[in-house]
Amino acid sequence: ETEAQAKAGGGIKINSDDVTIKVGGRLQYDMDWFDDEAFTGSNDSGSDSEIRRARLFISGEHGDWEAKLKADFKDNGDTKLDDAYIRYNGWDDLALTLGKHKEPFGLEDQTSSKDITAIERTMIINALAPGKNYGASLGSASNDFTWQFGVFDHGDEGGNIATGITGRMTFAPIVSKDEVLHLGAGFRQSRLAGNTFSDADQRLEVHTADEKVGSGTIVGESITAYNLELAYASGPFHMQAEYFDGEVDGGVNPDTDIDGYYAQFGYVLTGESRPYSKGKFKRVTPKGSAGAWEVFGRLSHYAPGSDEADTYTLGLNYYANKAVRIGVNYVNGDMNEGGVNKDGNAIALRVQYVF
Amino acid sequence: ETEAQAKAGGGIKINSDDVTIKVGGRLQYDMDWFDDEAFTGSNDSGSDSEIRRARLFISGEHGDWEAKLKADFKDNGDTKLDDAYIRYNGWDDLALTLGKHKEPFGLEDQTSSKDITAIERTMIINALAPGKNYGASLGSASNDFTWQFGVFDHGDEGGNIATGITGRMTFAPIVSKDEVLHLGAGFRQSRLAGNTFSDADQRLEVHTADEKVGSGTIVGESITAYNLELAYASGPFHMQAEYFDGEVDGGVNPDTDIDGYYAQFGYVLTGESRPYSKGKFKRVTPKGSAGAWEVFGRLSHYAPGSDEADTYTLGLNYYANKAVRIGVNYVNGDMNEGGVNKDGNAIALRVQYVF
Amino acid sequence: ETEAQAKAGGGIKINSDDVTIKVGGRLQYDMDWFDDEAFTGSNDSGSDSEIRRARLFISGEHGDWEAKLKADFKDNGDTKLDDAYIRYNGWDDLALTLGKHKEPFGLEDQTSSKDITAIERTMIINALAPGKNYGASLGSASNDFTWQFGVFDHGDEGGNIATGITGRMTFAPIVSKDEVLHLGAGFRQSRLAGNTFSDADQRLEVHTADEKVGSGTIVGESITAYNLELAYASGPFHMQAEYFDGEVDGGVNPDTDIDGYYAQFGYVLTGESRPYSKGKFKRVTPKGSAGAWEVFGRLSHYAPGSDEADTYTLGLNYYANKAVRIGVNYVNGDMNEGGVNKDGNAIALRVQYVF
Repeated sequence: ETEAQAKAGGGIKINSDDVTIKVGGRLQYDMDWFDDEAFTGSNDSGSDSEIRRARLFISGEHGDWEAKLKADFKDNGDTKLDDAYIRYNGWDDLALTLGKHKEPFGLEDQTSSKDITAIERTMIINALAPGKNYGASLGSASNDFTWQFGVFDHGDEGGNIATGITGRMTFAPIVSKDEVLHLGAGFRQSRLAGNTFSDADQRLEVHTADEKVGSGTIVGESITAYNLELAYASGPFHMQAEYFDGEVDGGVNPDTDIDGYYAQFGYVLTGESRPYSKGKFKRVTPKGSAGAWEVFGRLSHYAPGSDEADTYTLGLNYYANKAVRIGVNYVNGDMNEGGVNKDGNAIALRVQYVF
Repeated sequence: ETEAQAKAGGGIKINSDDVTIKVGGRLQYDMDWFDDEAFTGSNDSGSDSEIRRARLFISGEHGDWEAKLKADFKDNGDTKLDDAYIRYNGWDDLALTLGKHKEPFGLEDQTSSKDITAIERTMIINALAPGKNYGASLGSASNDFTWQFGVFDHGDEGGNIATGITGRMTFAPIVSKDEVLHLGAGFRQSRLAGNTFSDADQRLEVHTADEKVGSGTIVGESITAYNLELAYASGPFHMQAEYFDGEVDGGVNPDTDIDGYYAQFGYVLTGESRPYSKGKFKRVTPKGSAGAWEVFGRLSHYAPGSDEADTYTLGLNYYANKAVRIGVNYVNGDMNEGGVNKDGNAIALRVQYVF
Repeated sequence: ETEAQAKAGGGIKINSDDVTIKVGGRLQYDMDWFDDEAFTGSNDSGSDSEIRRARLFISGEHGDWEAKLKADFKDNGDTKLDDAYIRYNGWDDLALTLGKHKEPFGLEDQTSSKDITAIERTMIINALAPGKNYGASLGSASNDFTWQFGVFDHGDEGGNIATGITGRMTFAPIVSKDEVLHLGAGFRQSRLAGNTFSDADQRLEVHTADEKVGSGTIVGESITAYNLELAYASGPFHMQAEYFDGEVDGGVNPDTDIDGYYAQFGYVLTGESRPYSKGKFKRVTPKGSAGAWEVFGRLSHYAPGSDEADTYTLGLNYYANKAVRIGVNYVNGDMNEGGVNKDGNAIALRVQYVF
């Protein structure tokens, strides 16, 4: 009647009658080395190490309802909730989610941080994807078609909620074990609490770097952005690309464009495919006991206002098993900020364990 | 020999020989809308959403001993311990509790936040019930008679513990499945660390409201309060009421009275009863798979010093199953603060999942 | 195929095929009373209570890999990671650990806080043992010989990691159930981020005391320290002693010596032995259902720069079962700080539950 289970990368799962409770988590430890102005802000080299993510979750399912509470632990006193939502699955294929959860915008943001191919997401995704916020969303997902639409709380605007709306649709004309073609589009618009947009300043895809591109906080009343997604996978080959067009509406101040794109190409040397399910990719699962090896390349372009940055990333991933993944990335970045050119190189190393 | 279990609203429970370990939690997500001075402090309307409580616990039992560690996660960097106590049950019916635990004062405060009928507790309870603190308490509980008495740490007073004592006794002359009559009385007295009492300022029972009644911090050496509890339940009907009389002893400054009361009446439309056990109520458990519906009304009066506030709450609760509860409350409030009258209305919505 | 287990002092353990996941924690609640200058800084008495440690962990093992995430909850908003590491055990007897973990230095620091004999570790250990930091270490442990060496991140020094290296070797010429002779030596050296060493100020082994010995932050470029360890146990008797010699290299400023030692003698009245395994001691496990009783004495000397402190501790431990331990310590301390003598007495009480 009760089934208990420990699953690599899936945590503890206890199931009794119609109740399921899971406990799990993830751990990412990073070491980064970098030089020059694009990463350190000076001509010097730099280095740092950090626990990038340390998360513990409990989730539950009971009848048509499910819920998840995921804590994100930090060493600097900034421990927070990552997920904290309650979901109703009782209306046919629809899912209604209430609480803190990920806003539906951008393929790379919808893909879990434990499943993305590079160590860090791209600059344009980090700038424009709203991430996890309080709100309500409705969606539906089958393996070849998904949509999700939500209304979210983006802080306080004169005593009221600064409301944001976000939506995403994806379609997979080809979706088999061997081949996937994914198309997607998203939209977001939100009021800006405090009349400022503060996500435009971005590091060049190395999380401990000291330098950022973007000339500080942007004054505005609202932000609007849309994106287009394209992904294709065939056997051990996979690629994904996204284009984003965003604009901060300045009100009486001038508007500011925030645009960007990236393209990523990967190949699993040991022959495994990158799994796809319901509009998102997952990380590679090794078939043999020797693990799986993957190489990838990525180019990323980001243009907040009159500033600009480009990165070129080459990476190697080793998936030891379902729980462990090790990645090393080389990043070449250059930026133009306020008319000043800066470039630099970085090596980033991540070890990841999914409980 | 080992028994594993997942229980809706009760978490994971693993039992081996004489050792039991449980892991569970709760999640409450709120959305509030309100207007006018009693809630916003101005003539404008307001709204907000928040994760009201996100808690994860581990508890253990081994022989005569048990312990609980419950974390309360916040998004603003204020993650804390909720419960953190060790209890000894080896002296017949007595329980000795050491560590952070709830001080025994006030029926509505003894009732868990996942089991109270309204979304928020009343102003007078929030002002006078000391809540959870470090300390030691001794108590005993049978289904018709309970008592608990404790000594608690209320902060620092000249390098020493500012000591508080708290006690509560309850008696249930009628206690059957169909009918409950509960009588109770409590007492608290404590030194005031920093010679200030800062719990008198209270929102009008809507947690995200901007405005509070109470004219700021009260200067004093100690606080003394007592209360009387009355509750009655018969079939689907239940009611509870409490009266509180408190006083901050000002020392060389004038004393300040803090008084209040509330009365609450509820009816479970689908016929279930509100469960009662050992001096506390629990939330309704639906009998059928369609869930349980409950209506209630509450009036609440609060008078800190020369200020005064009254609220009238009407609410509807839906208990989908043992894990999920949804509540919507309408609150009409008015206050007189420093001679100025303010009133307003609010709608509060909560979704709750107990892992 | 799946085995679920609840183990007193060992948490929940679920094992499916080659995957094991554990969830557990510990809770320590302290009450302290003390008088006079060495503890309060004045001629007055003092008292305090606190949750000393409240920790929750999840750990996983999958093939040659394991990982642990342990959160340390605080009530003052300072919740942190305690352990957050990933370990590879695939190279014969070697273990490679990456992430936040304990630096290998000092027998009393290597012994878990739930297993040390006194309530608090000694001043010299708290001053010189680096504790838990981000880094990489390699080690090997058999029951009579262990070594571990690591490189750790001690903060930021001009944009780069302020690197520390730490190493420890232990040898047990006698190691049987009835008798243990342990010898050990350790070394640490690290750059000082911000050119300051701030661990020299230490309380006299009562954690809530107001007064510390040590004349503030020490300016320097690096710290170097070594230690020697000696421990012997025979039946219910056990003793351990360590000597430390440390120096802050002042660069252009003068160097500062930080020296100290301690010796501790214990006896388990109920006849149990203190368990030893792979270079560390564990806490006593009672044989009978009445629990185990232990007495101990400790002298501790600490000399940061020209200051000096000595403590004499007498203690009684009651191990109720594998989960529960209660300790009471009497501490007599005196210090000479900046030429001023201060002394005092303290009583500390701890209740501990290991989930």
